[in-house]
Amino acid sequence: MRFTSEQHLDDGVLERAFTLHGIPGILWTPAAAPAPLILLGHPGGLARMYPRLAARARHAAEQGYAAVTLELPGSGDRPRSAVADEARADLRRSLAAGEPVDDEIVSRLVLPLVDEAVPEWRAVLDAALSLPEIGGPVGYAGGVIAIGVRLAVVEPRIRAAVLFAGSYVPRAMFEEARKITVPLLVLLQWDDEGNDRQLALDLFDAFGSEEKTLHANMGGHTGVPQFEGDAGNRFFARHLT
Amino acid sequence: MRFTSEQHLDDGVLERAFTLHGIPGILWTPAAAPAPLILLGHPGGLARMYPRLAARARHAAEQGYAAVTLELPGSGDRPRSAVADEARADLRRSLAAGEPVDDEIVSRLVLPLVDEAVPEWRAVLDAALSLPEIGGPVGYAGGVIAIGVRLAVVEPRIRAAVLFAGSYVPRAMFEEARKITVPLLVLLQWDDEGNDRQLALDLFDAFGSEEKTLHANMGGHTGVPQFEGDAGNRFFARHLT
Repeated sequence: MRFTSEQHLDDGVLERAFTLHGIPGILWTPAAAPAPLILLGHPGGLARMYPRLAARARHAAEQGYAAVTLELPGSGDRPRSAVADEARADLRRSLAAGEPVDDEIVSRLVLPLVDEAVPEWRAVLDAALSLPEIGGPVGYAGGVIAIGVRLAVVEPRIRAAVLFAGSYVPRAMFEEARKITVPLLVLLQWDDEGNDRQLALDLFDAFGSEEKTLHANMGGHTGVPQFEGDAGNRFFARHLT
Repeated sequence: MRFTSEQHLDDGVLERAFTLHGIPGILWTPAAAPAPLILLGHPGGLARMYPRLAARARHAAEQGYAAVTLELPGSGDRPRSAVADEARADLRRSLAAGEPVDDEIVSRLVLPLVDEAVPEWRAVLDAALSLPEIGGPVGYAGGVIAIGVRLAVVEPRIRAAVLFAGSYVPRAMFEEARKITVPLLVLLQWDDEGNDRQLALDLFDAFGSEEKTLHANMGGHTGVPQFEGDAGNRFFARHLT
């Protein structure tokens, strides 16, 4: 983890840009150390996502959490994937034609992304937890939901996850969903036109966790109500202690 | 509203049993007046429900709310309804046979109950709001969900409702659901074996409110997690001010 810039935000939070094996990321740490860590998931494109990610990180810092995020494979300045670009074009065509989205297209789009991203997020977890200002335990919060699912299964340091059900999940990953045992809070935008509501409900049903909660709200894909940020903090306060 | 007994609870809450036109009910008021009022819905049987209702009322009182509840038609010591008893027996037979529950049975069970109960709850609202220790605005919290739906449509003093999706709703009432405009928090026990999950999701979809939130949890019919009590208080704090 090589820090490339830092700035002190006015609420006592230190924001540092870094690269890890050439992949850009951002780390936010509150004044009090060591802080539990939240991995901030997102749909890719750190520059575009920065305002929302920084707001979520500062909100988490109010409760004493550090937060870290990493650019996704194929997004931002990282090399694009021809397979993903083609699958994304097929998905757009399906949606524009009003057809049901084919699981084969979703698999081509999502599975390689998950396979590539998850080891990178585990590496950033290693790096962040080696810093004296970061302590365990760890939570995951955000999308791409399939990345959160895989991480919750394979990464035992993740003790709880807030998953944004705003992207497609291949049916092949439902078996992984059944293996999750950590507490989950799943956020679903009920009127998200670009998402498959029934798939999100089926996925929630599949999760193996004894404690799982679904929060469905109105407001469209990007309209998650502000009070859900507080709900996420309270969820982590119950489980990351 | 004729008070029949009163006791001061150790958290400063005054609990008074009353009758209204012969119907028994309970009123809880916090020390600070005038208090906004929550109507506490329940499935009928005040004596059996008392521990849970009192716990909910005292939790609401921590946030400064008064609470009132009333025995349902056909429950407790109130005259039983032959129509409802027969419909309930038909419903039990359907469930025991593993059949889908017929909307005709649900209508026979629920519609007369709603027709009879709603004017009674509006009368208790009139009576409670005439007391100097109670002020507006008013919220509804609980089941029978069909009673909450009708009240939210016809009673303009109700500004927000927490609805427990733990009982059947006749399809005929979906048109009423579309007319609701007040903010809603709907609680669904995802693994409630005695309920129809798809009906609850369809009902949530039908609600006309711009702000509506669904919280689905595990734990079976009576296993609503404690943190949902806090969530209800925060919901009312946003809307009953």
